[in-house]
Amino acid sequence: MISVTEARKLIAENCNREKTESRLLSKSQGYVLAKPVFSPVDTPPFHQSAMDGYALSFENWDGKSDLEIVGEIQAGSKNVIEIKPLQAARIFTGAALPAATDTVVMQEHVTKNGNQIHINNTQLVKGTNVRSRGSQTRTSELALDKGQLLAPPAISFLAGIGIEKVDVFSKPSISIIVTGKELIQPGNEIAEGKIYESNSFGLIAGLKVLDITPTSVEIVDDVEAEIVNAINRQLNSDMLILTGGVSVGDYDFVPKTLERCGVKNIFHKIKQKPGKPFYFGKRNESLVFGLPGNPASALTCFYEYIIPAIGNFTKKQYQRKLKLPLPNDFKKKAGLTYFLKGKTNDEEVIILNNQESYMMNSFAIADCLIELEEEKEHFMKGEMVNALMIS
Amino acid sequence: MISVTEARKLIAENCNREKTESRLLSKSQGYVLAKPVFSPVDTPPFHQSAMDGYALSFENWDGKSDLEIVGEIQAGSKNVIEIKPLQAARIFTGAALPAATDTVVMQEHVTKNGNQIHINNTQLVKGTNVRSRGSQTRTSELALDKGQLLAPPAISFLAGIGIEKVDVFSKPSISIIVTGKELIQPGNEIAEGKIYESNSFGLIAGLKVLDITPTSVEIVDDVEAEIVNAINRQLNSDMLILTGGVSVGDYDFVPKTLERCGVKNIFHKIKQKPGKPFYFGKRNESLVFGLPGNPASALTCFYEYIIPAIGNFTKKQYQRKLKLPLPNDFKKKAGLTYFLKGKTNDEEVIILNNQESYMMNSFAIADCLIELEEEKEHFMKGEMVNALMIS
Repeated sequence: MISVTEARKLIAENCNREKTESRLLSKSQGYVLAKPVFSPVDTPPFHQSAMDGYALSFENWDGKSDLEIVGEIQAGSKNVIEIKPLQAARIFTGAALPAATDTVVMQEHVTKNGNQIHINNTQLVKGTNVRSRGSQTRTSELALDKGQLLAPPAISFLAGIGIEKVDVFSKPSISIIVTGKELIQPGNEIAEGKIYESNSFGLIAGLKVLDITPTSVEIVDDVEAEIVNAINRQLNSDMLILTGGVSVGDYDFVPKTLERCGVKNIFHKIKQKPGKPFYFGKRNESLVFGLPGNPASALTCFYEYIIPAIGNFTKKQYQRKLKLPLPNDFKKKAGLTYFLKGKTNDEEVIILNNQESYMMNSFAIADCLIELEEEKEHFMKGEMVNALMIS
Repeated sequence: MISVTEARKLIAENCNREKTESRLLSKSQGYVLAKPVFSPVDTPPFHQSAMDGYALSFENWDGKSDLEIVGEIQAGSKNVIEIKPLQAARIFTGAALPAATDTVVMQEHVTKNGNQIHINNTQLVKGTNVRSRGSQTRTSELALDKGQLLAPPAISFLAGIGIEKVDVFSKPSISIIVTGKELIQPGNEIAEGKIYESNSFGLIAGLKVLDITPTSVEIVDDVEAEIVNAINRQLNSDMLILTGGVSVGDYDFVPKTLERCGVKNIFHKIKQKPGKPFYFGKRNESLVFGLPGNPASALTCFYEYIIPAIGNFTKKQYQRKLKLPLPNDFKKKAGLTYFLKGKTNDEEVIILNNQESYMMNSFAIADCLIELEEEKEHFMKGEMVNALMIS
């Protein structure tokens, strides 16, 4: 049995693949860039008016004469107006400045008299109200670096410099196998000795938060041959998550069937509560996570180990960790790290009731998992503890 | 022109609908319960073994005699074994206890001798290792209350009590209309006077973060009749987001065309930078948001106003706000609230360069928007400011 720290280290060491893909920018929200992006164009692509007003050549203006209006340029229109000294063009925000002009005077700063304008702005300098070509991004310049998370503003920025596709780190393909003879699906009448299957619901929802849809979800009986068949069907995924049958009882077939399927046991059992029987293995590039069948244990291991493993794959930090004080003393056994369902507020983190591994009612309203270190027994009121935020 | 505070108040007041729907539990991750859920069953549905071991009647045991093993109960199997005094049944985790039994002794705490077991656990009390029927949730008991966010553990919990469908607050249907004669789509050659269209990319990505796919996205020319047609096509959505043409220039058709389409102007222009021309209106139950065309202004208004409006609709708090100190002095004009692209670290929040409304390169790497109050001009190093987290 290994410690939580060792378990984290072994998972990180074994989840170090770089799988990348080219994606449409419009489908890449939340991905991380696997290659830097260089700008294919100058942005703005021309000297652009930042205001509705009049474009003029500041250099050819004497600072006092009225100017003749010789045309109008709307944003998006072709710019074919020739401007001579003492002339100006009506121009609108976003439009390209005519060739001989360098400055825009706001419409609020002129007096218009027929076809003539008089400029009232004594503060006008060359370049006023002009976004010069390439002032945001120049052609061939690094626009965004490898490792950049593509949040909405990054997507908007890349669209604005004309990028259509990006190279990003892929999400892993994930298969789920839920084992258990006692499971029936919600919506059916409960039968003698049976309980409702909930782990597939929790895991599918957990992956949905990461915008991942599992490749397949199989619910299989606690029968060795059926589990072997399911594993063989699903072992081509980047990650395989099993729930149930991971302990050492007579019907806990998962570790031995994984061995039969050629999966190398990296570790089995962690000094923690809940989730002690957690299994982690590997076959070629496929990672295999065996979660205990109790729903609270399964989801605790999902949050503590599988989400970080997925984050190693996608190069993303999915989870926030906070340090908050406990409002009351708490006592635990030494020798196991505890992961407790907690609820934070601005000042503290409360340990909820009903922490047993089969109880989900506290987990359902929790917003974090509190981690209490293996060797420590007594936690005092006001003591700072680590909380892994889950919502 | 109104203040940011007034704008927020007016949006909140006008976004107060309660639209609910019945959804499959398996499709309800991230929704908020619109009705309380009462448990249809006891959970566990029977007295359940928490361990692999032997089930016995503690009351009928004298505390010293060996017990005869009379059968085996696997989790999920029907339980038809009759247990008499001085008998026990082999039992596995999750299995239902035979009728006459009340206690499970762990397999590690017995010595097995043929068909007999000797119990070595002197600490055994009635009920040890038994999860009694209904100990998590009782039939008809409140399982989760209205207003509960359905995060993965809540989904798992509800599945475990047999729930198949839930009543939740709906997400709004949202249409996007991007206006501008100057826009061409990324992937095409840039033409004279044109720029790449990026607002649809930023807004679609921003809605994707909230797990919302817009009902429609239209890119329309700056021509009044075309904008009117697009608005009429899309005004049946719960929310309509327009970008561009929202200022007061000759080609800013959005406010007047909205009026022609029967939209009531609730406010137009906010004392803020960027995003001053922001428009908000309503027709019947449809909310209309007019965003400035500059991509940084558009996304700033999306984060500051539209996401909270969607949150009012779905009863969700999507965004985190932090208070962090500035690492340097900063000076702004009084009279406008500033929203600045920022980057947080553990200790502080840095104001990024390139804050102009047409520049997206700073926004692309920002993780927050810093809000600096309208009336204040000088911000000192170490002063705490509000940061709205965007990634």
